[in-house]
Amino acid sequence: MPSDTVAERTEAQLIHSIKTRLPPAPDWLAVGIGDDAAVVEPARNRLEVLSVDALVEGVHFDRAFTPPSAVGHRALAVNLSDLAAMGATPRLALLSLALPRALPVADFEQMVASLVALAVKHRMTIVGGNLTRTDGPLVLDVTVAGTAKRRQVLTRAGAKPGDELYVTGAIGAATAGLQMLELRKKLSTTEDTGNTEKAIAQNCIQRYLYPEPRVRMGSLIGRNRAAAACMDLSDGLAEAVHQIAEASGVGAIVDSERLPLDPGARLWFQQCGGDPMHEALVGGDDYELLLAVRPRARGRLAAAERHGDVALTRIGTCTAETSILLRHGGADRPLPHGFQHFNPGNHNSRPR
Amino acid sequence: MPSDTVAERTEAQLIHSIKTRLPPAPDWLAVGIGDDAAVVEPARNRLEVLSVDALVEGVHFDRAFTPPSAVGHRALAVNLSDLAAMGATPRLALLSLALPRALPVADFEQMVASLVALAVKHRMTIVGGNLTRTDGPLVLDVTVAGTAKRRQVLTRAGAKPGDELYVTGAIGAATAGLQMLELRKKLSTTEDTGNTEKAIAQNCIQRYLYPEPRVRMGSLIGRNRAAAACMDLSDGLAEAVHQIAEASGVGAIVDSERLPLDPGARLWFQQCGGDPMHEALVGGDDYELLLAVRPRARGRLAAAERHGDVALTRIGTCTAETSILLRHGGADRPLPHGFQHFNPGNHNSRPR
Repeated sequence: MPSDTVAERTEAQLIHSIKTRLPPAPDWLAVGIGDDAAVVEPARNRLEVLSVDALVEGVHFDRAFTPPSAVGHRALAVNLSDLAAMGATPRLALLSLALPRALPVADFEQMVASLVALAVKHRMTIVGGNLTRTDGPLVLDVTVAGTAKRRQVLTRAGAKPGDELYVTGAIGAATAGLQMLELRKKLSTTEDTGNTEKAIAQNCIQRYLYPEPRVRMGSLIGRNRAAAACMDLSDGLAEAVHQIAEASGVGAIVDSERLPLDPGARLWFQQCGGDPMHEALVGGDDYELLLAVRPRARGRLAAAERHGDVALTRIGTCTAETSILLRHGGADRPLPHGFQHFNPGNHNSRPR
Repeated sequence: MPSDTVAERTEAQLIHSIKTRLPPAPDWLAVGIGDDAAVVEPARNRLEVLSVDALVEGVHFDRAFTPPSAVGHRALAVNLSDLAAMGATPRLALLSLALPRALPVADFEQMVASLVALAVKHRMTIVGGNLTRTDGPLVLDVTVAGTAKRRQVLTRAGAKPGDELYVTGAIGAATAGLQMLELRKKLSTTEDTGNTEKAIAQNCIQRYLYPEPRVRMGSLIGRNRAAAACMDLSDGLAEAVHQIAEASGVGAIVDSERLPLDPGARLWFQQCGGDPMHEALVGGDDYELLLAVRPRARGRLAAAERHGDVALTRIGTCTAETSILLRHGGADRPLPHGFQHFNPGNHNSRPR
């Protein structure tokens, strides 16, 4: 077909191009895409875990430097991260896309292909959705459902004084990657910028564009009940500590020397004249998990780490105080907050 | 608080204002608003029916003449209509809202209040959602889940030759109401336009702004298995006939003289010089149901009508042909199609 933008396609054609990318439907899907609604058989003896997240062009991503495949990947990844943070196993997704008329069909197809690839990777079935055009920015709204046994559900509210705080993976890389992309845009170059080595820059950019939600680790920790509380770092590590502490009614001390800063991000923040620790604490877009773990559950946590695909780092402790502190160079000060994305000036963070 | 627009509120404040409007949570809601995801216990021995729909400002509604309470009502009503069309009983919803910074907080609150009121009316629990700001138009994405027993599910695909086609309620009023509002906007008046009597105009406008999804009738028909196929009329009656016929592999004849045109709408279309029947057939926004009913199920259909809250009108028949026809004045011609909302120029229809 010789058309270039989605405005020249019918809804049926666009839906067809999504459907052809999907693997065969599982037995539990009684009615899939194409009716007024999808019909699914619930998973036996499990609770259902539901979340929705939106990515809005100009707020959560800049199409100037976020390729369509990254937009599609991130739209599902942020939701998978929410399921991981609950200890749930992904099951299904519904996609609601508002498409600007001028969106090239090729971009639409890359976006969908990437999203479907991530869904397939996590054995998630796309059961339905909605397409509409818009006179505004591209909006991707993804609703996901996962399953978990009742006793496997990880909330934010289970932490107690004395629990140890752990984080998965490394922090700061996504924020550094975003800053690199923004600088390149400003300088109108796709080349490497600054003195950061190419491989290091590539890694940070990759972490920003194609975050890997910690689905396996979340599910392992839910199953072996290693964590008393959990959430993801979508709004930054510092904000996650505040949220878990608030929901659980505890205080917290985070030890700055233990923070697992991504080495490339550290280098980048230093080159930019910033404080690497601060940037990594308040920066969003790291889809890692923050866990509160009872000291006696350390063994179970170690077991999860052995079977998992990502390292865990102890970064602090929950306290009986109300204060939430950062211990740095022997002195304690208030832990900063993360993104408040409704306030003007905060871009590229994603809502919880 | 002396602020006027949502830009001056934090996400937490806006979420709080939603939460305070919600009734107490049901027992099956294990984790509600405020964590990474909601956790719900599935309904026993029932399938789950899932749908998502978006309302985009400038495409599905014009804020110039659609008050915030109507925007909120319609955002949920279109989804309830999808559940009704599947024979499902509504259970829960997730709201994902992209809010322009300049949106007055009062508008936000009216929108939410109206949406919550409709949810409460249908005993639906709002279990979670997402708020983000946008530099573009207001977008409301609502995901709903309902439940139905396996044998109660109504799809589009069950019609056979000889089945009778029925429609709930009256058609055309919503389209007429929208045309009245558009004319008032053009003439910069909030007064009645044309010679249409005020009460008639009010009824059409009400039907456009505050559609009543046929939840009760859908559920009754699912339960007593009166219909072999069903869908809602969001894109117009003519389009619904095409969709059911296509999904079921049958033809259809619609009898123009049987169409239950809303009397006010008929008058309006006549005054505007249009063909009332054509306008009512292709006009969208009537959230009525189209049913295909086996002749031997007429008794069950009558029982549903007695227990229901809306009239049913027989409008045609499914045939063994491939043609989809409109019988008018003794002659048959092709039934027109409804909205193709991806094509330029079609506004105010909603996507399926």
